[in-house]
Amino acid sequence: MESMGESRKHVGVLGLGRMGTALAGALLGAGHDVSVWNRSPLKAGPLLDRGAKLAATPAEAASADVVLSCLSTYDSQQPVLEAAGLSGRPLVNLTSGTPEQARTAAKWAASAGIDYVDGVIMAVPQQIGTPVAQVLYSGSEPTFAAQRDVLAVLGTPVFVGEDAGLAALYDLALLGIMWSTMAGYLQALALVGTEGVTPEQFTPMALAWHSAVAGLLPGIGEQVASGDYATDVSALDINAAGLAMLVETSRGQGVSTAVPAVLRELFDRAVAAGHGSHAIASVIEEIR
Amino acid sequence: MESMGESRKHVGVLGLGRMGTALAGALLGAGHDVSVWNRSPLKAGPLLDRGAKLAATPAEAASADVVLSCLSTYDSQQPVLEAAGLSGRPLVNLTSGTPEQARTAAKWAASAGIDYVDGVIMAVPQQIGTPVAQVLYSGSEPTFAAQRDVLAVLGTPVFVGEDAGLAALYDLALLGIMWSTMAGYLQALALVGTEGVTPEQFTPMALAWHSAVAGLLPGIGEQVASGDYATDVSALDINAAGLAMLVETSRGQGVSTAVPAVLRELFDRAVAAGHGSHAIASVIEEIR
Repeated sequence: MESMGESRKHVGVLGLGRMGTALAGALLGAGHDVSVWNRSPLKAGPLLDRGAKLAATPAEAASADVVLSCLSTYDSQQPVLEAAGLSGRPLVNLTSGTPEQARTAAKWAASAGIDYVDGVIMAVPQQIGTPVAQVLYSGSEPTFAAQRDVLAVLGTPVFVGEDAGLAALYDLALLGIMWSTMAGYLQALALVGTEGVTPEQFTPMALAWHSAVAGLLPGIGEQVASGDYATDVSALDINAAGLAMLVETSRGQGVSTAVPAVLRELFDRAVAAGHGSHAIASVIEEIR
Repeated sequence: MESMGESRKHVGVLGLGRMGTALAGALLGAGHDVSVWNRSPLKAGPLLDRGAKLAATPAEAASADVVLSCLSTYDSQQPVLEAAGLSGRPLVNLTSGTPEQARTAAKWAASAGIDYVDGVIMAVPQQIGTPVAQVLYSGSEPTFAAQRDVLAVLGTPVFVGEDAGLAALYDLALLGIMWSTMAGYLQALALVGTEGVTPEQFTPMALAWHSAVAGLLPGIGEQVASGDYATDVSALDINAAGLAMLVETSRGQGVSTAVPAVLRELFDRAVAAGHGSHAIASVIEEIR
């Protein structure tokens, strides 16, 4: 531990849910001094065994080189931050919320003299402390740079911009991809399941296909960027017709049509707007 | 070409759209004799230059060891098949349609003494003739086995079952995953685009995330198979709250809420049904 020398920092962690506990554990593992505060101090037990100090108040935990906050909601977080007396200290806010909530917190922090960085963790607690855990940050770039050593312990840090709401915006955008993909997969399992096909039989094919679909995304991104939707591969009207078949077949097999039906409406609107012979990327014109 | 010896076959191809042309081209490339028929014979030009024979009628193309049909719809296909006089011959039907249409075609084929296999091509025409092109087949397994050598020229052949509708069911299920994923990605691009983030900036992160999400699918499949939705990672109620934030933020940033709103309704229904503390996999209970 002593080998960390000057790079050893005192980190305060506010909130010991699953994620806060994982963050504090990774920091202890990297040799930092960690003070933890939680409304219910019982949750701190395993961390205290590993060398963390239990703070009786948010202010006690916040007497540190840098403070990480990971509460359940912004509403429960704000009184904790106000009680912490963070003026002049760097705060990294890892509580989940909307871009608007992050911007409001950044404004409050500026008025209170706090160096504010907002972060979102694109990982589950089990991945914290490994490079596969990407953590996106936005807000004060100098504060991010000064705390980068501590933040790199949690996962791979990525700074996305000075607008404090940007990390939360990326977070919701990326989670939206996850929810859409998972819903598509569950819809597919339900559909093939009506004919007795098991997840074990279907999933290898779904994974190979998922990976093939990933290969199409960069091209779609380029078409969105350029606004040039020409295609010689797969026109929107054929895909819209396919979606109509999916809706019809889902109904016929007795599974929910909710998700495919809304995709069909979206694609149909894009066809109606004149994009029938264009690439699927043109659907973005009906989203933005 | 002569080196193919006994494995050289005479293949009839009905329909020369982009896909039919790619199929005929791959067969020619592998040294097979290919007869092609298309309503408009002009499209056959490049294939004739490569050694294909132009058939004046569907029946002429169907005087072959095996016949592949790749028309634009089942409605346009049926009169062509009836004119082809396929009795006693193997037919591989690669025209896109619903499982119900495939089953109807299989019944008609059985009544007409035709050995019927239904196929769906999980690839774009540019990928035909390469192993990345997966082609799923269902229907008569002996017919599939007897024609496997020819079918392996088109892409990687996968037999999914004797119910002729199964390949089409897999097709729609897999395409549904693609449409959901693409819609999720376009939704994400539109959302971050409202703050000036470009597809070029966002896509590398989306791809890393997409790959992380792929890693979660097998576990979801296992939970669906077992019906055990216990989780210590990410509970449905937290994801439902995240979807509410995504809908609110999409509305606030002025992008369509159609897709996230329908996902939110689906997740909320599963929470209302008692799955709040369960894994996301439990959403399938509201789909099937």
